[in-house]
Amino acid sequence: MTAPSSDILETFDNPCPDRRYIIETVAPEFTSVCPITGQPDFGTITITYIADRKCFELKSLKLYLQQYRNHGAFYEHVTNLILDHLVQVTQPHWMRIQAAFTPRGGIRTSVTAEHGQAPTETF
Amino acid sequence: MTAPSSDILETFDNPCPDRRYIIETVAPEFTSVCPITGQPDFGTITITYIADRKCFELKSLKLYLQQYRNHGAFYEHVTNLILDHLVQVTQPHWMRIQAAFTPRGGIRTSVTAEHGQAPTETF
Amino acid sequence: MTAPSSDILETFDNPCPDRRYIIETVAPEFTSVCPITGQPDFGTITITYIADRKCFELKSLKLYLQQYRNHGAFYEHVTNLILDHLVQVTQPHWMRIQAAFTPRGGIRTSVTAEHGQAPTETF
Amino acid sequence: MTAPSSDILETFDNPCPDRRYIIETVAPEFTSVCPITGQPDFGTITITYIADRKCFELKSLKLYLQQYRNHGAFYEHVTNLILDHLVQVTQPHWMRIQAAFTPRGGIRTSVTAEHGQAPTETF
Amino acid sequence: MTAPSSDILETFDNPCPDRRYIIETVAPEFTSVCPITGQPDFGTITITYIADRKCFELKSLKLYLQQYRNHGAFYEHVTNLILDHLVQVTQPHWMRIQAAFTPRGGIRTSVTAEHGQAPTETF
Amino acid sequence: MTAPSSDILETFDNPCPDRRYIIETVAPEFTSVCPITGQPDFGTITITYIADRKCFELKSLKLYLQQYRNHGAFYEHVTNLILDHLVQVTQPHWMRIQAAFTPRGGIRTSVTAEHGQAPTETF
Amino acid sequence: MTAPSSDILETFDNPCPDRRYIIETVAPEFTSVCPITGQPDFGTITITYIADRKCFELKSLKLYLQQYRNHGAFYEHVTNLILDHLVQVTQPHWMRIQAAFTPRGGIRTSVTAEHGQAPTETF
Amino acid sequence: MTAPSSDILETFDNPCPDRRYIIETVAPEFTSVCPITGQPDFGTITITYIADRKCFELKSLKLYLQQYRNHGAFYEHVTNLILDHLVQVTQPHWMRIQAAFTPRGGIRTSVTAEHGQAPTETF
Amino acid sequence: MTAPSSDILETFDNPCPDRRYIIETVAPEFTSVCPITGQPDFGTITITYIADRKCFELKSLKLYLQQYRNHGAFYEHVTNLILDHLVQVTQPHWMRIQAAFTPRGGIRTSVTAEHGQAPTETF
Amino acid sequence: MTAPSSDILETFDNPCPDRRYIIETVAPEFTSVCPITGQPDFGTITITYIADRKCFELKSLKLYLQQYRNHGAFYEHVTNLILDHLVQVTQPHWMRIQAAFTPRGGIRTSVTAEHGQAPTETF
Repeated sequence: MTAPSSDILETFDNPCPDRRYIIETVAPEFTSVCPITGQPDFGTITITYIADRKCFELKSLKLYLQQYRNHGAFYEHVTNLILDHLVQVTQPHWMRIQAAFTPRGGIRTSVTAEHGQAPTETF
Repeated sequence: MTAPSSDILETFDNPCPDRRYIIETVAPEFTSVCPITGQPDFGTITITYIADRKCFELKSLKLYLQQYRNHGAFYEHVTNLILDHLVQVTQPHWMRIQAAFTPRGGIRTSVTAEHGQAPTETF
Repeated sequence: MTAPSSDILETFDNPCPDRRYIIETVAPEFTSVCPITGQPDFGTITITYIADRKCFELKSLKLYLQQYRNHGAFYEHVTNLILDHLVQVTQPHWMRIQAAFTPRGGIRTSVTAEHGQAPTETF
Repeated sequence: MTAPSSDILETFDNPCPDRRYIIETVAPEFTSVCPITGQPDFGTITITYIADRKCFELKSLKLYLQQYRNHGAFYEHVTNLILDHLVQVTQPHWMRIQAAFTPRGGIRTSVTAEHGQAPTETF
Repeated sequence: MTAPSSDILETFDNPCPDRRYIIETVAPEFTSVCPITGQPDFGTITITYIADRKCFELKSLKLYLQQYRNHGAFYEHVTNLILDHLVQVTQPHWMRIQAAFTPRGGIRTSVTAEHGQAPTETF
Repeated sequence: MTAPSSDILETFDNPCPDRRYIIETVAPEFTSVCPITGQPDFGTITITYIADRKCFELKSLKLYLQQYRNHGAFYEHVTNLILDHLVQVTQPHWMRIQAAFTPRGGIRTSVTAEHGQAPTETF
Repeated sequence: MTAPSSDILETFDNPCPDRRYIIETVAPEFTSVCPITGQPDFGTITITYIADRKCFELKSLKLYLQQYRNHGAFYEHVTNLILDHLVQVTQPHWMRIQAAFTPRGGIRTSVTAEHGQAPTETF
Repeated sequence: MTAPSSDILETFDNPCPDRRYIIETVAPEFTSVCPITGQPDFGTITITYIADRKCFELKSLKLYLQQYRNHGAFYEHVTNLILDHLVQVTQPHWMRIQAAFTPRGGIRTSVTAEHGQAPTETF
Repeated sequence: MTAPSSDILETFDNPCPDRRYIIETVAPEFTSVCPITGQPDFGTITITYIADRKCFELKSLKLYLQQYRNHGAFYEHVTNLILDHLVQVTQPHWMRIQAAFTPRGGIRTSVTAEHGQAPTETF
Repeated sequence: MTAPSSDILETFDNPCPDRRYIIETVAPEFTSVCPITGQPDFGTITITYIADRKCFELKSLKLYLQQYRNHGAFYEHVTNLILDHLVQVTQPHWMRIQAAFTPRGGIRTSVTAEHGQAPTETF
């Protein structure tokens, strides 16, 4: 199976590029595969961003995330890769990805990465 | 069906214009239509503002939001349009709109936009 | 029926006037009457303050708030009037009133007003 | 606008007709219109049934329920009408409809109707 | 002030009298007055019934319950009186009233009374 | 300190003795003392009953329960003693006491006792 | 990809076959594929049973359920198939499967099937 | 390490043996060891019973349960063993043990066993 | 009964005095007596501090707080007195006391006081 | 039994060392032993950090924390020791440990310590 690719992500023009506003998308049905054991991992991906010219389209995001379904990757790598891909296609003012995974061995982990200058507004 | 119009919005004089205070109104029964598929979308609109001379009247707000019931628009556009209309009729010191939509395809999205300088008080 | 009056409010001497500390009182059984329709409104009043010389006494606060039971007033006016009255009798360093009303027509509103400089401590 | 019709409902063959088992479907995005005031009502429809030969198809159920979006009807009538239509197309061993509506004037109502003999198993 | 009267209650014809089904109405903004102290009491009234020929109309119920706003009565009496009045105007197959009051002196009380034979169906 | 006595409990005439209905009173601020260690115990007492001729008065119940504040007794004894006392003064058709205590040593316990024939109605 | 098979399920001897007791296992990370659209479905599988001679082993259950990960099947079929497979390998006194799926199109569904005589004990 | 023994359990005389009443004790800090992997398991043990002549003493129960801390046993065996031991020392009218374990591999399990005739009262 | 005294409080040496770290202790079973009515008050005391040389010992804190069990004092005084006593024996870099009391007359109050410079770290 | 050692902790190379991002790991099944009484303590350890070159591996973390299972130590010491060990092997930009313990004697405590400069980003 090929690695997840950003080619599947589609964008549309930001309808309000002159105003800095926040878009937050939560995908609670994320699943990937542990590269060591081959066992499935499950988690919730939360994407928060301030678009510049481009917004990502939601159905293409769903298909993009489904690429990880049978792909083996560590939590830290998955999170940073999703951020890299979404930044590449939307070139946002700011974007943050939080990936919260379900427990394994009684221990749960989340990873949070961001690109650009975090907003100081009271969002 | 005609597009949502701010004409339906009514205002009343701010009873306490000399004090900066916060008004927050939550409308959890918002519904509009997806412009692509024609399917209904559902969400919660939260309006937070510091009025200057004018406050919007609640019953007229309810009727204003009902204009979107059979209107097709993207999440990002709906949020910014409501903000534009409410700013137009109340001219507030500050206003923020948050629109949180219910999941589609296992993914949910919210959009937050604001007008004017956010308050620094501890509200 | 007469309008709510601050005369009913009683105070006692702040037992610790040299230390700035926070008192928060929550009254979830507030009810007043809509001045337009005559229908009752219900809400929760939260009072937070840093006393100077005087604290308000809780039983007198209860009786004070009961004055609104058959009194007609808009949300924005009620909130600011309670703040004015409590500031008048306690002359606090800082005070904030938040009034959160139950839904009407599927829409709910809260109003928050404050007097004096908000504390910067980590309360 | 025409009244809601059962014609839009599609069914498929029960994959396990020899075993009595329970199917429960919850539709929290139901909306209709008050026949008196023309104002929208919102609610959650819960359908629970034991199929005989036929199960209703979920996408057609969604489209069926959307027929009420601009249709005026009382709570009690809506609930019984949905039950009548679903019984008509699936002829189940047993079916129950619960419609829970959001508050109006501080008061909320739900209506529950069933067709056939309720199961005595410990579902 | 006159005592609460059932005269204000309006009914409409049960749209589905041949089917036994359940209607449940919850009124969380009930308030009355303690007959001893004159202090207000607050509670939630839940009405559950199987109508025969008549259903009570919701707006008239709201006005009926508002009659208790300045009326003094004990919890046990209020609950049984509401049941008597609603039974009188609707003559239901079965009706149950539950009144749950907010705490006084750290103690909270609810009263539940019913008229007619409770349903044995699995509602 | 003297042992808790039922003398402090007051009753009033059941306003509706011909109808069997349920009264439930919850007292979450109960405290007594461990007879072994002298350390305080904390718990919630829930009293549910069907009155015959007499109901207990709530303020006297509060004072009755305060008698346990500095009284040493085991959980099982406290629960049965409260039941005995309340049965003695009200002579109910049925009464149940549930005492749920907060954890000690990481373990929490509740005790439930009843008097008379439990109701079979659907309360 | 081959269909899910019960061959992967392992069992161990019931350590207490003379006592009827309940085992409940909840697997919240179930995922399969919609046979129509090819899109992934997500749900929680709850298995409750009274073992006779055999209990299923938990790690083999996990691997068994993972067989559905890329398998296309309707909700009703998946639920009955899991029940058939687990009954086949454990031959229990009683078993119930509940499969609760996440929303699609704003509508969520669960399916519950059982084998054998449900227990009448107060579990 | 020796196996858990009932010798450590202490009892006291039931203070009210003529009344059938329920005692429920919850121990949320149970931990044992998986006999296969040697990894710790964690769970909550809930014990519910109707005592005859003897009640178990809570501090001795705590020490009894701590015997499992470094003891290897399967869920099904642990639950039945605790029930056997507690029945042995208290000889109750009825007793039920529920052991709810935390997730392993994304799957969680609970086991419920009882001794004697379950009560039919409305506890 | 004598007034609460700090003499009962014991301390131990901070095991890590070179690192500024936060200790938070929550005591939800606090009870005192109203100095006016003699009725008991109940609340939760939360103590948060950065120790310097000394930490308070938890069992002595429990006994210290039990001194208030039959002591009459206003909320504001209790909170400041606990702070004074704990500061006296531990001399912390910073300490905050929050006392949240249960409702009386439908109104609940909390009091928060602190000593020293609040931390600016992201605790 | 030997004291907990950092030797068991394993690390892997940070897959994205050029981006400052947050990793948070929660271990709710932590248990140690009170050094005074020998009784077990239970708590949840939350580790939050910004890695530099090294991330700790989760399975080795689980085994590391299991070393405390039969080890006697005070809350304050445990928290600082875990921080010291994890800092030693990962040398992070920043790390924070929060240890929240379950109640003893009705009182619960948490300890929070951090190493390095806390992030100012909006994580």
